[in-house]
Amino acid sequence: MFAATPSANPPLANNSEPDPEIVARARDIVEGVRSGSRTHLGRAITLIESNAAKHAPLAEEVIRQALPHAGRSIRVGITGVPGAGKSTFIESFGTMLCQDGKRVAVLAVDPSSTVSRGSVLGDKTRMEMLCREENCFIRPSPSSGTLGGVTRKSRESIILCETAGYDVILVETVGVGQSETTVRSMVDFFLVLFIAGAGDELQGIKKGIVELADALLITKADGSNIPRTEAARVEFMRVLHYLTSPTPGWRPEVMTCSSLENKGIREVWEVIERFHQATRENGFFTDNRKQQTLDWIEDMLSQQLWHDFTHNPGTVEAWPIVKRAVLAGKLSATTAVKQLFNAYQS
Amino acid sequence: MFAATPSANPPLANNSEPDPEIVARARDIVEGVRSGSRTHLGRAITLIESNAAKHAPLAEEVIRQALPHAGRSIRVGITGVPGAGKSTFIESFGTMLCQDGKRVAVLAVDPSSTVSRGSVLGDKTRMEMLCREENCFIRPSPSSGTLGGVTRKSRESIILCETAGYDVILVETVGVGQSETTVRSMVDFFLVLFIAGAGDELQGIKKGIVELADALLITKADGSNIPRTEAARVEFMRVLHYLTSPTPGWRPEVMTCSSLENKGIREVWEVIERFHQATRENGFFTDNRKQQTLDWIEDMLSQQLWHDFTHNPGTVEAWPIVKRAVLAGKLSATTAVKQLFNAYQS
Repeated sequence: MFAATPSANPPLANNSEPDPEIVARARDIVEGVRSGSRTHLGRAITLIESNAAKHAPLAEEVIRQALPHAGRSIRVGITGVPGAGKSTFIESFGTMLCQDGKRVAVLAVDPSSTVSRGSVLGDKTRMEMLCREENCFIRPSPSSGTLGGVTRKSRESIILCETAGYDVILVETVGVGQSETTVRSMVDFFLVLFIAGAGDELQGIKKGIVELADALLITKADGSNIPRTEAARVEFMRVLHYLTSPTPGWRPEVMTCSSLENKGIREVWEVIERFHQATRENGFFTDNRKQQTLDWIEDMLSQQLWHDFTHNPGTVEAWPIVKRAVLAGKLSATTAVKQLFNAYQS
Repeated sequence: MFAATPSANPPLANNSEPDPEIVARARDIVEGVRSGSRTHLGRAITLIESNAAKHAPLAEEVIRQALPHAGRSIRVGITGVPGAGKSTFIESFGTMLCQDGKRVAVLAVDPSSTVSRGSVLGDKTRMEMLCREENCFIRPSPSSGTLGGVTRKSRESIILCETAGYDVILVETVGVGQSETTVRSMVDFFLVLFIAGAGDELQGIKKGIVELADALLITKADGSNIPRTEAARVEFMRVLHYLTSPTPGWRPEVMTCSSLENKGIREVWEVIERFHQATRENGFFTDNRKQQTLDWIEDMLSQQLWHDFTHNPGTVEAWPIVKRAVLAGKLSATTAVKQLFNAYQS
């Protein structure tokens, strides 16, 4: 990433110790989260989701103190087009895990939530059974914001859920726009749900989404739908044949399930456990988490740089003139870049 | 892209007129290129490919003066794994176009050329027939550099070839790494070549490459290979079924050809002409070229910003410390970004 490694380790510019009062308040919050209280966890997430600048120092200190307690979970991303049966699957899957004695947190990433049709945890009551489980924590999508903002909130919510001792973090997203790539970048295992039907329904599959999957799950494999799910399974195996696995040493699987008849649900967990073991053994699990964090930092830095550049008075003034000249064929792209950069630095 | 449009149109920071001597020298070069002389075109491309800083002002002025004469060609990207028959196809296809009275330029984009196995125009003698055509100009890959550098050189070479009056620009790249995405971003039509064989050979297809194609072409459809090419054609049509076309209003086609028997070659040009007409009519052709230029400017700006950031003494010093703290779980990613940004600005 960076050009060179320095020989010395000078202190950082902004390395001052935080306010002792903030440290103490953060300690109380993190202790509350660690006690396993869902109320405390919910409040801590509300704090880190806050867009208010005055909450930022406390939120940062909470995450800093939480970090040493985080990391011990398996993070599973779940996506699928609206109607693919995400909520129903998460209800069955989460309930099974809770009854196995696992602690399960369900988070949502939905940058479009303000205009969504409630497809992502929009209606908690759709998960009535799961909501009643003592071992389960459900959190809907953070309040709207840029995808970058939602990403930060979701990643830090995962850290808080892990601090609270949740073993399995399910991160749900609707398979539209960029959100599934974003979720892919914060989880260990990525599950893509499809619903089988007439061949034409499969056309709705978003470009590229199959490539992100560690497993594909075809839902509603029950009753008269079984032949169609089986045909879809064969079809998807054929498509996977053309794609590279997102995880080295792991060959994506295609499964079918029926949440209605509770069939194929345990098999999903078995696949995830097999994945977990394989990637732990070959070192990918840990390396991937480190790389995800570094990539995220790089993303945030790029966004910040771009924001500064595009909000700089010099570039804001120069851009329309440069753009017009370029589109009129009077200015080359290379020269345009130089002029915009000069405008930025002057 | 930018935050706001200003009310005034102030002069740009670096808007000074270029040196009159450079303007005059550039005029001579552009006149030479416009005369149709391949020698002059070759020399002009060598100039813009130069990495020497002292050549930059003249190279920029040449492009500036060439721009009004550029744009009147169809730009066709051609990719495929090594062994897919790219050179053989380009030889047959280019020769046919030249004999039809078209002027054809063949350029290569191969950022890995220093370590390549000569798969991209590495050996001009492989195109003996095409080389002899008066109406053809062949230029191997620019000397090695970053992909960004190769991109600039290739885009500006296209401008120079158009200035020289070439009607069809074929931009060849080997289907590895990022180069095919790069070529996709500088052409109107993108053709992906495959060779049919046992089903297993199809596994070598790079993730995502089929999605970039306006047409797929299965080569070596001759003799005993015909049943296999036909089977591959059906298979690819099935795969395309799952993908979104890169060009609105255009449905990617799957074709077969034999360069050996000279079959299916003319059909490729017919498809390209149909594409050209369709995208001219729906406005995509022109809009896409404009958007490609603006995207390229944005790319270059991002790269420049990132380069400045990662070579800044403050960030270079801070990065290893921040990285170590993040990977040790002692510093959150969000705080890391703030610290790095402070180090950059201080």
